[in-house]
Amino acid sequence: MNKLLILGSIAFDQIETPFGKSNAIMGGSANYIALAAAQFEVPSAVVSIVGDDYPQDYLNLLSQRHIDVSGIEIVHGGKTLFWSGKYRNDMNQRDTLDTQLNVLTNFKPVVPEAFRNAEVLLLGNLHPTLQMDVLDQMLSRPKLVVMDTMNYWMNHTWDLLMEVVARVDMITINDEEARQLTKEYSLVKAAQRIMAMGVKFVVIKKGEHGALLFHDDKVFFAPALPLAEVFDPTGAGDAFAGGLVGYLTKTRDYSFSNLKNAIVHGSNIASFCIEKFGAERLLTLTQDERHARLQQFRDLTQFDIQLK
Amino acid sequence: MNKLLILGSIAFDQIETPFGKSNAIMGGSANYIALAAAQFEVPSAVVSIVGDDYPQDYLNLLSQRHIDVSGIEIVHGGKTLFWSGKYRNDMNQRDTLDTQLNVLTNFKPVVPEAFRNAEVLLLGNLHPTLQMDVLDQMLSRPKLVVMDTMNYWMNHTWDLLMEVVARVDMITINDEEARQLTKEYSLVKAAQRIMAMGVKFVVIKKGEHGALLFHDDKVFFAPALPLAEVFDPTGAGDAFAGGLVGYLTKTRDYSFSNLKNAIVHGSNIASFCIEKFGAERLLTLTQDERHARLQQFRDLTQFDIQLK
Repeated sequence: MNKLLILGSIAFDQIETPFGKSNAIMGGSANYIALAAAQFEVPSAVVSIVGDDYPQDYLNLLSQRHIDVSGIEIVHGGKTLFWSGKYRNDMNQRDTLDTQLNVLTNFKPVVPEAFRNAEVLLLGNLHPTLQMDVLDQMLSRPKLVVMDTMNYWMNHTWDLLMEVVARVDMITINDEEARQLTKEYSLVKAAQRIMAMGVKFVVIKKGEHGALLFHDDKVFFAPALPLAEVFDPTGAGDAFAGGLVGYLTKTRDYSFSNLKNAIVHGSNIASFCIEKFGAERLLTLTQDERHARLQQFRDLTQFDIQLK
Repeated sequence: MNKLLILGSIAFDQIETPFGKSNAIMGGSANYIALAAAQFEVPSAVVSIVGDDYPQDYLNLLSQRHIDVSGIEIVHGGKTLFWSGKYRNDMNQRDTLDTQLNVLTNFKPVVPEAFRNAEVLLLGNLHPTLQMDVLDQMLSRPKLVVMDTMNYWMNHTWDLLMEVVARVDMITINDEEARQLTKEYSLVKAAQRIMAMGVKFVVIKKGEHGALLFHDDKVFFAPALPLAEVFDPTGAGDAFAGGLVGYLTKTRDYSFSNLKNAIVHGSNIASFCIEKFGAERLLTLTQDERHARLQQFRDLTQFDIQLK
């Protein structure tokens, strides 16, 4: 069976929204990505690092979903990455209150033997050197390599970042990051520039305004589901990416038309993620719930204009 | 044949964008709405007012498209509404540099006899008293009454505005205005509140982020076409509304599923409008061009997920 390998962070997140404040809960991109991908019941593994303050229970939540955790290094006497942030009233902007890198500072990723031949590789938003390191440990080039990144790496590790970009098939990035990466305001032009860097598929995430997928001269758009309440947007972008790669790992079809479906599945899972604090909602999400909401996505976007 | 009546402003617009600066050109909501609706070759009429400084040539551009201009009062010795504005570099924000109401100050709309039985009525963004006045001149209640409005009327004529809102079937409004009208940040909740005021269909325009249509518990979303260049966004919202009512006047089908199509047609026409200064592009737009781009809208949004 086809395998998915995920590089990402594992963290304690402490989140404040207009609706309330969480304790230091299970967070980090790898958790969101892995839990979202697990919706498609594909063999997956996470490469990450935690301190011994990280609860075994949290790791068990992954194992129970057949997510291999042997690539998550546990540093004895070390402290897990900690992030705290506060959302403003419109939920579209957040301020980081605190970031403590802790064990992440000395992270040397090691890909579990059984996943060095994974067909799909998701390089989550971490230092480009770590992304490169994981890519180098693969026995053969995966069929699909997806990377996420952020403005911090553009500002501080531009050349290394460009080396990774040159080696991936797909990048998922938000609108502001796409603009920063290319110095283009138009997202169409930004996507064209990123494709000119050698990336086949460019996914631009626009938060509540949906996501765009670019490939050659083709473009597809998936809206975010209009929701009455957004409880906590943390992790929505990672859940989106996780759903996307989970679906692709399951279907093994990397055509543009199947990528459209993958984007819709990703948006669908992200729409659940934001209903509760952190990854809480992803832990209870069922296939039936997903399928019911996919019908809503269909109603939201599908039309039938007959042209003469 | 089914008729469309349009109340709106006619103006000289002087527009500055990062790409250049226009002279004082043909502008105002009525021109954009009427030219967009004319794509569907339905009998329409405009109720508006100009000074005798307004070129007969501009009025002819409407007449040539079978738009009745007998309801456009020409004030001898009067000056036409003038607006000038400047777009910022991101094209999403504009600053009004000057507004001279001129003849609009004493406007008393008179609906041409032949259009008092119009089946579709679009009340463009003007003083609520003018909107009410036109509604009162109709021989019978039109099948569909659509209104546009803006924050100015919410701030200055709230009670009058509410009287109009209570009498229309559909409101088209931008996201910020929907929030101001309802004190709700969530657009879903805002739409619910507006429907509770008695409006059956709520269309929320989000500019480059597309448009949402709400009706009962149903929602539909049409994205804006992702374009490499936005030359001038002026009038895009009016062209959208014009396309929407033009299509509905033509098809006489006010069901939700046909309204979806109307929203897509409106978005399509708006996507052309922003390619040139003012209404210039609407004057050359052909049905073939529209149909070709509708195919792009389809490719952009349609997907085919099979659920087990």
